[in-house]
Amino acid sequence: MPSRTRADIPIAVLTDFGYRDHYVGAMKGVIATIAPATRVIDLTHGVPPQSIVAGALALRESWTYFPKRTIFLCVVDPGVGTDRAPIAIETRAGARFVGPDNGLLSLAANAAGIKAIVKLTARRYRLADVSSTFHGRDVFAPAAAYLWRGVALRSLGPRIGGIEQLDIDGPVRSGNRLKGRVIYVDGFGNLISNVDRDALAELIARFPGRSAWVRIGNSAPMRIIEAYGHTIKGALLATFGSFNLLEVAVRDGSAAQQLGASVGAPLTVITRPG
Amino acid sequence: MPSRTRADIPIAVLTDFGYRDHYVGAMKGVIATIAPATRVIDLTHGVPPQSIVAGALALRESWTYFPKRTIFLCVVDPGVGTDRAPIAIETRAGARFVGPDNGLLSLAANAAGIKAIVKLTARRYRLADVSSTFHGRDVFAPAAAYLWRGVALRSLGPRIGGIEQLDIDGPVRSGNRLKGRVIYVDGFGNLISNVDRDALAELIARFPGRSAWVRIGNSAPMRIIEAYGHTIKGALLATFGSFNLLEVAVRDGSAAQQLGASVGAPLTVITRPG
Amino acid sequence: MPSRTRADIPIAVLTDFGYRDHYVGAMKGVIATIAPATRVIDLTHGVPPQSIVAGALALRESWTYFPKRTIFLCVVDPGVGTDRAPIAIETRAGARFVGPDNGLLSLAANAAGIKAIVKLTARRYRLADVSSTFHGRDVFAPAAAYLWRGVALRSLGPRIGGIEQLDIDGPVRSGNRLKGRVIYVDGFGNLISNVDRDALAELIARFPGRSAWVRIGNSAPMRIIEAYGHTIKGALLATFGSFNLLEVAVRDGSAAQQLGASVGAPLTVITRPG
Repeated sequence: MPSRTRADIPIAVLTDFGYRDHYVGAMKGVIATIAPATRVIDLTHGVPPQSIVAGALALRESWTYFPKRTIFLCVVDPGVGTDRAPIAIETRAGARFVGPDNGLLSLAANAAGIKAIVKLTARRYRLADVSSTFHGRDVFAPAAAYLWRGVALRSLGPRIGGIEQLDIDGPVRSGNRLKGRVIYVDGFGNLISNVDRDALAELIARFPGRSAWVRIGNSAPMRIIEAYGHTIKGALLATFGSFNLLEVAVRDGSAAQQLGASVGAPLTVITRPG
Repeated sequence: MPSRTRADIPIAVLTDFGYRDHYVGAMKGVIATIAPATRVIDLTHGVPPQSIVAGALALRESWTYFPKRTIFLCVVDPGVGTDRAPIAIETRAGARFVGPDNGLLSLAANAAGIKAIVKLTARRYRLADVSSTFHGRDVFAPAAAYLWRGVALRSLGPRIGGIEQLDIDGPVRSGNRLKGRVIYVDGFGNLISNVDRDALAELIARFPGRSAWVRIGNSAPMRIIEAYGHTIKGALLATFGSFNLLEVAVRDGSAAQQLGASVGAPLTVITRPG
Repeated sequence: MPSRTRADIPIAVLTDFGYRDHYVGAMKGVIATIAPATRVIDLTHGVPPQSIVAGALALRESWTYFPKRTIFLCVVDPGVGTDRAPIAIETRAGARFVGPDNGLLSLAANAAGIKAIVKLTARRYRLADVSSTFHGRDVFAPAAAYLWRGVALRSLGPRIGGIEQLDIDGPVRSGNRLKGRVIYVDGFGNLISNVDRDALAELIARFPGRSAWVRIGNSAPMRIIEAYGHTIKGALLATFGSFNLLEVAVRDGSAAQQLGASVGAPLTVITRPG
């Protein structure tokens, strides 16, 4: 690893603003004005509109791949303009998070180990005019840029004791099966479920010698395999994907389309001999 | 504010090239070849294809959020290959604009105060081969990159006296109402109108004690509120959004879909007691 | 040209990951961790899912516009997790390519002149845990970042003698016509064919005094013109576009929609008097 200076620490940005409008561009303009030497990395701006769950999952699965002191500037904010608090978080792992206190930051921040949280109220670290509809530009981008410049977390506003948690309930075991559901559909049409590796391992441990299969609704059972490539074009398969969650995919196609399934669809893991 | 060097001045890029093809990437390759230390910021590449109005509005609403000497490289260019002039503009506010002379730059450049305009004809500041279909790569990107390197505006070509103006007519008052229309639909499905804060303030001043309501076509009247969050999911609302224009939106949904409305739909502001 | 340091050499990234998910963001996080001072340029992430041909064409048409020693990190990888090799290539032109050995790199690398190829097997230049579904993050991004830092190509793995070639067959001449086909549809709906300038020039040379027209399927013949602007709104036209291939387009519209045509549609060039 090379030695690091502040210039090496990026600001990574995650939003649901999409790519059609100038909203993300304006946020980057604000960062470039306050902290011109910052490197800004787009984590994604394609979070489905207002989907706090999808944003929180994307952040949880990607923050560990960034440099240690990265500042994550995250805006999926259906409550903008109401009294949900704008916050910034420092963690034991080094990562810093800036965004609305609505659960969006909770999965990643918990995993990184929360050290301190502040409510972003200091006027000098916001834009002079704060709109009621665009805190990404007027409140969150300035906070991230000033943090990057070395402004102390406590200068951004008063400490608060905790953050909103996001509840993503896990699957429920019932006899020799796990009952889960689709919680996210990615850009390829892959159906991502709430079944993690631990839940599957626990099921398999109870039924040694059996193998595990997956169904979406009443679909034909699919075997769980290691890699997309190990199957033929157009065939359905179940695997652990980039979210570290069990997902159903089609090689060179869209599982969502092929199965007519979307968020909320039941996913069942069953065990059977052989 | 930290002190600035040339490296701190970004080139901000706005196009209608979308995100599917390599067109924007090639423009950035050209910039990196001519001016390797430049920071390039994507303002957006999602301007609806050929929509000069949408591009001009996005630019007008975002240029003020960028560092003072930012170079805005803008390409929405239905007339590429014809005799519309390629131009560069310096402004009293400091911002510089490069793009086709078709109205795209006019709203922002007028607001920034035009100081000088040149037609981009100097061969040494273009690529050696200029295609007839891709001036973004062959003419505009090199001009922006050489400007960034310190080449004087006047070296890029001869001065011209004025630019094409974009006419976006405002709403018309008729008794106690303003008759406007939808001029843009953003990525969330919000319906953005040609009614600005001044026009609304003037109407309200004429009818003290009344409140203002908005209709799209024959829709039920919607009250004008301050923030998206102040309403329930799925409810229609009218507010001043990120374009500083009156817009109709749905919390957690698409107003365009819900109302079946698109660009050109009539929007009326009415005043009534209470 | 300014003098160059390593910091001036970008990593250009091309994938089919789209813009909805965090996949590209995670790759950039990996690069920023290994090589924090790198400039990363998005070539495009909008290659149609799993379309090796579209990715290879986009790369062939854009690599020459980048600085000489640019590292192209390319991931369109339907065979991820199988035994297709991960590779890196050095070329006589200076450009370096990293990606799967499935033809994706072949058009650009051949044009740049292949000097050396290695298979990416060295464990110390991968992430510690390599998933079976995401080599972009775990294998290719680290290889590109270490190359950028100055790690020698031969340290990344053993030399191999050749790469997978992509066969894009050209058009077939039959009397006074060329029979080609649509090989790609871009984001504007332009229909890009396999007819290059040489094939057309050869046809025209055989029939002096005649002019060339284009048909898609049984469409009305379209004249080949120089620039999009030289026609009226909504009119179909044929021209050589940004891929340097004959393409059919509609000014301010989508040729794919207007003609109901997609990849594979027959395109014929005919010559006729006048």
